[in-house]
Amino acid sequence: MPLGDTALPCTRDDALALDRADPLAPARARFVLPQGVTYLDGNSLGALPKGVAERVAQTVAHEWGEGLIRSWNAAGWYDSPGRIGAKLAPLLGAAPHQVTVTDTISVNLFKLLVAAARLRPGRKVILAERGNFPSDNHIVESVARMLGLTARFVPAADIATAIDADTAVVELSHVNYRTSEIQDMTVVTRAAHQKGALIVWDLAHSTGAVELHLDRDRADFAVGCGYKFLNGGPGAPAHVYVAEQHLSTLDQPLTGWFAHAAPFAFDDDFRQAEGIRAMLCSTPQMLSMVAFEAALDAFDGIAMRDVQAKGRALGDLMIALSDERLAPLGVGVASTREGTRRGNHVSLTHPEGYRIMQVLIGRGIIGDFRAPDVMRFGFGPLYVRYADVFDAVAALEEILKTGGWRAVPAAPAGAVT
Amino acid sequence: MPLGDTALPCTRDDALALDRADPLAPARARFVLPQGVTYLDGNSLGALPKGVAERVAQTVAHEWGEGLIRSWNAAGWYDSPGRIGAKLAPLLGAAPHQVTVTDTISVNLFKLLVAAARLRPGRKVILAERGNFPSDNHIVESVARMLGLTARFVPAADIATAIDADTAVVELSHVNYRTSEIQDMTVVTRAAHQKGALIVWDLAHSTGAVELHLDRDRADFAVGCGYKFLNGGPGAPAHVYVAEQHLSTLDQPLTGWFAHAAPFAFDDDFRQAEGIRAMLCSTPQMLSMVAFEAALDAFDGIAMRDVQAKGRALGDLMIALSDERLAPLGVGVASTREGTRRGNHVSLTHPEGYRIMQVLIGRGIIGDFRAPDVMRFGFGPLYVRYADVFDAVAALEEILKTGGWRAVPAAPAGAVT
Repeated sequence: MPLGDTALPCTRDDALALDRADPLAPARARFVLPQGVTYLDGNSLGALPKGVAERVAQTVAHEWGEGLIRSWNAAGWYDSPGRIGAKLAPLLGAAPHQVTVTDTISVNLFKLLVAAARLRPGRKVILAERGNFPSDNHIVESVARMLGLTARFVPAADIATAIDADTAVVELSHVNYRTSEIQDMTVVTRAAHQKGALIVWDLAHSTGAVELHLDRDRADFAVGCGYKFLNGGPGAPAHVYVAEQHLSTLDQPLTGWFAHAAPFAFDDDFRQAEGIRAMLCSTPQMLSMVAFEAALDAFDGIAMRDVQAKGRALGDLMIALSDERLAPLGVGVASTREGTRRGNHVSLTHPEGYRIMQVLIGRGIIGDFRAPDVMRFGFGPLYVRYADVFDAVAALEEILKTGGWRAVPAAPAGAVT
Repeated sequence: MPLGDTALPCTRDDALALDRADPLAPARARFVLPQGVTYLDGNSLGALPKGVAERVAQTVAHEWGEGLIRSWNAAGWYDSPGRIGAKLAPLLGAAPHQVTVTDTISVNLFKLLVAAARLRPGRKVILAERGNFPSDNHIVESVARMLGLTARFVPAADIATAIDADTAVVELSHVNYRTSEIQDMTVVTRAAHQKGALIVWDLAHSTGAVELHLDRDRADFAVGCGYKFLNGGPGAPAHVYVAEQHLSTLDQPLTGWFAHAAPFAFDDDFRQAEGIRAMLCSTPQMLSMVAFEAALDAFDGIAMRDVQAKGRALGDLMIALSDERLAPLGVGVASTREGTRRGNHVSLTHPEGYRIMQVLIGRGIIGDFRAPDVMRFGFGPLYVRYADVFDAVAALEEILKTGGWRAVPAAPAGAVT
């Protein structure tokens, strides 16, 4: 069944045929995947790439245990933020010297928003997306408060037209965490620049999932996530992109010693490092860094164009199957249906989504739940199969028809989902 | 030779006798230590405790590889910052609910300085130590700039008397990274409070090295390091202390989702978490977190009073031996000589310190160099022996007498030391 146009319904044999024809199918062998699990939550925590366990063990036993302090030089720890950034840069469509790996998305967003606003003195507004991942907007509000600016939130569709001569910075997720909708980076960036504003893109659900062209699209700044579609491990460090033209004027507020031009001179005065190193703050958490670095090997020889195409096809399949089998059982689709504007996850809705997801997870089919009613399924295109999507929908259908979720308690207060 | 009073010179046999009588000697078996290395740089990167490699491997292979996203609950990742903080609290002399583990020292210092200043509106000065670790002061300056305050730097000895009615916050290292001098936490904290100011202590060279009584001494806030005397691994996450009375009024600027009262409700509005969780920002780097947690087991059953006493004795020995054998060869002592006011490292000076240290490291005796002329030796009291100190001084004497350092090139520009 070619997706999106013809030939529904899809059978499991159809899905298996799609897997046989999938040019990315061999990449699945690059991952350690547990038996009996169908993993559709790579948008929250990517699966474990082969080789990572060995690399981490090597770092603990040999680099730390035997090399000790000498490994900051000898094992390349000191240079790792820029080295890993350069390794990652092709996935962002960026020249290597503009990317580094450090801290978390929220911490980096704080740095970038302050730096961007300082490049637009006199302008009073940080414009951001209502409905973005809340953490982004909490940071936007905090930066606005500290700098005496106004945080303004509008729906993503209205961002481009809401930019005006008072807008210092625009902050926007490229792929929305809930709807999976992709914003047009070329168009929104151009709209910002036409009004003299700068833009900070959040690539949390983009890097490793969809094709990116930060340089071509003239993005000013971006942050992205290591632990979702890049499979870098739980809480893997985030990455930061700064466009060439801002590298020399960057003025970020977390002025720790790794951002110093000469950290080991121990000068009393702060002289900012040249280039992307100015985005660092302090000593990197090396065990998480080396895991992330090793995990990127899973992308060797993989074209992001193919990754995005497969993610789109997996999403199209889930939406088509959901329309056919789950809609009559009360399930809605909260993601955009337009494949070219959708990232690598699909959000289905049901008022009992939390309880349904618990049953599904209990059966080894793992997605996640996002309050109040979203069952979210992410497709790590390097390891998810069309048959996995089929199996997830079939299981959902069965759970809804039998009412198996009714035995599950409602979400406890403060549930970690 | 009882140290500090009598019976110099010390022979290697004297040092071995001290090791035999050392009540902490058995703790050395809790570490993996490489053959042929005398490690006196635990103040930069602590040695690898046994059990850490296994714990990290378990997290990678089983918790991440098999548990996948479920491990945020099932493996206790989500609760790890507070859990590890509570485990660490006794070493700080703190009640467990006041400590958490997150981010880096500099990032946490930024959070705490902003939060502290916000608790003292109207006051205009952040007072800090001239000669403190430069990263601290760069952060002090950045916070002052963002909040419209003045950063004022005075020598540590003048801090207490420099506090006045315009001082919002005092920031000070408890043990200086260069001189190893201990500031009197009781006295300086009281001086701050008498003038209505708050105090943020940097415990980078204190936690795991000297006895701390944050609660007793009425400290307001503190940050500390995971990778030095706590042996938590390269770039291990930092820890944060907030006194009980500030937990409910804390208002820190890095308002990421882990600081939200209900992170998984995905509310648009920020509602700060109650208690110490308000000091978190974003998703923890779990591989580094679990290594740190496992590393703390090395302190099981160890009294910090004994740790500090041994560190003092090791330092007294190094200073005594240096006075006897190295002073005639041009080596000075940059640390305080008063053992009760000295942390667990000793700084020796020589104009050719960089080159001398390279020769020493080449012989497997590892300290570090701090520009312009400091050869620094740190004593992880759980694994450093009196004989190690003797051997280091003997090697220094030999290198200085033979001029073996002359074959080493001068420090290259930007050397990572």
